[in-house]
Amino acid sequence: MAGAEVSVLGPGPVVLAFDVGGTDTKSALVDADGRLLGLRRTATPIDGAAPAASVVASLPALASALLAEHPGVRPEAVGLSVPGLVDEQAGVGVFASNFGWRDAPIRALAEGAFGLPVAFGHDVRAAGDAEHRLGAAREFGDVIVLAIGTGIAGAIILGGHPYSGGGYAGEIGHTLADPTGDPCTCGATGCLETIASAGAIARRYAAASGADVAGSREVLAAAAAGDQVAATVWNDALDALADALARLAAVVAPEAIVIGGGLSQAGDDLFVPLRERLDARLSFHRRPKLVQARLGDDAGLLGTALAARDLANSAAPAERSEP
Amino acid sequence: MAGAEVSVLGPGPVVLAFDVGGTDTKSALVDADGRLLGLRRTATPIDGAAPAASVVASLPALASALLAEHPGVRPEAVGLSVPGLVDEQAGVGVFASNFGWRDAPIRALAEGAFGLPVAFGHDVRAAGDAEHRLGAAREFGDVIVLAIGTGIAGAIILGGHPYSGGGYAGEIGHTLADPTGDPCTCGATGCLETIASAGAIARRYAAASGADVAGSREVLAAAAAGDQVAATVWNDALDALADALARLAAVVAPEAIVIGGGLSQAGDDLFVPLRERLDARLSFHRRPKLVQARLGDDAGLLGTALAARDLANSAAPAERSEP
Repeated sequence: MAGAEVSVLGPGPVVLAFDVGGTDTKSALVDADGRLLGLRRTATPIDGAAPAASVVASLPALASALLAEHPGVRPEAVGLSVPGLVDEQAGVGVFASNFGWRDAPIRALAEGAFGLPVAFGHDVRAAGDAEHRLGAAREFGDVIVLAIGTGIAGAIILGGHPYSGGGYAGEIGHTLADPTGDPCTCGATGCLETIASAGAIARRYAAASGADVAGSREVLAAAAAGDQVAATVWNDALDALADALARLAAVVAPEAIVIGGGLSQAGDDLFVPLRERLDARLSFHRRPKLVQARLGDDAGLLGTALAARDLANSAAPAERSEP
Repeated sequence: MAGAEVSVLGPGPVVLAFDVGGTDTKSALVDADGRLLGLRRTATPIDGAAPAASVVASLPALASALLAEHPGVRPEAVGLSVPGLVDEQAGVGVFASNFGWRDAPIRALAEGAFGLPVAFGHDVRAAGDAEHRLGAAREFGDVIVLAIGTGIAGAIILGGHPYSGGGYAGEIGHTLADPTGDPCTCGATGCLETIASAGAIARRYAAASGADVAGSREVLAAAAAGDQVAATVWNDALDALADALARLAAVVAPEAIVIGGGLSQAGDDLFVPLRERLDARLSFHRRPKLVQARLGDDAGLLGTALAARDLANSAAPAERSEP
């Protein structure tokens, strides 16, 4: 994991980076050496009436605090990533169920709030880009970076370049896993996310056992200790994940699938049985390597900072919005 | 369908085109106006001992016949497409279950046989390229062209360019449809192809009813006439296809899915219920248009001819192999 004094980013423009999640927002100032200064988590404001505006309005105060702590450091650009459906090219948050916005012009709002160019992106694609440029996906041209936490989503990199399908691609958590399964928050039925996300594993175990658990880690521990209910929930998740990965191998045929997010912290307890199950499902297919993500929790923030630096490197002064 | 006198290809270099299938080989001479001269189907030689060499050895005689019929027409390049796993860049037939070859240097063999530059490709990707350049996929940047016949395979075009995953991508027929399903010829279990290909529909109906049928068309007709066994087989195929298309929408998010091959000839009987079922499976996803392929049976041959013309346009004389 990237700490405040670890410079995985290397030298480049000074930028502010914000990775806005459904619960927390991570923010940091990235200096010219690539150090993440003042990295912190703060609660994301959720405002049903003006969701995008209230999120954007919360950012300048975070920036002021960071800049006050590091008075000599002047950012040239801002990186901002959000979850949901994101159209990076248009700078629009198309939809995010946690927030409720639809077609929100978030990049323009943020450029107005900061008076700086803003690189606006998708949290999972930002994390995938960071893993591809700095982490576990680095050596692969065709690779999928999967984040398995509360939900499941993937960043697709093909021929060395991110592919976003107009913002809609990579929604592996919302592929059909079980036609007779549970309703998903997305509105469809039996999505992979309802069986195999870290959140679903905890939820399904709690529902089946009546026991309260904090997360998937405890379900895995209970399964290892001989709890049959926990073992069934864990095995169902592994089977559903292996089915989904086998389908990715057949359709996209990536050289590797990098898995990050909370569930990946199970390490060999996840990767060893998942590799076995994937292997059993494939025949002539290109067999993807299953690799643990390397950048940890801050991959999204690092990718956001990389995008802001790319923008600072490419932006001519005339292109900047100076309100 | 492109007849001998229809020029959908337009003006360009004169080429020979061969679309080698598991049963038949289609061949034609393409003149400078883009007409397919002498288009014919001949039996593909299957030789277990030397499968690639015997296929390639059968082509010069076809070429001689075509050139004898059109003495003034001199080809500058040859296009050759085959099924299975194809590495276009290396010019290698990686694997084809119908033929049994493995890592066969087919492009080099064909260049030796013809003394002309050879564009070597994959039959389904060639058909997809033709539909994208000349047919139903023309207006889309992110599009999948699916051929549903004896088997099911797709050509993936992203950002206007074909994506092949090293030759392994687009094997939608070999994605898991039913974990408790039948063994597939590929070695895996419950592949989409075992339920939803035109071949599987006929086979499953014959197995369930004891009646002998020539193809999926007769199963559809029987279902329409009230045959409950036929209706079940047809509905199972539609459901499995809709599941697979919904997963493509979530992962690849194409603007459109173009469907060709034998099954697509059912027209509205296929497309209307398939659109309904796909629609019911999606929530926030990008909803792909389902479009019938336009170039018919000759799409693979047309795409093969296009690739040969591209090669003729790009090949400098020094690059040609003149044995």
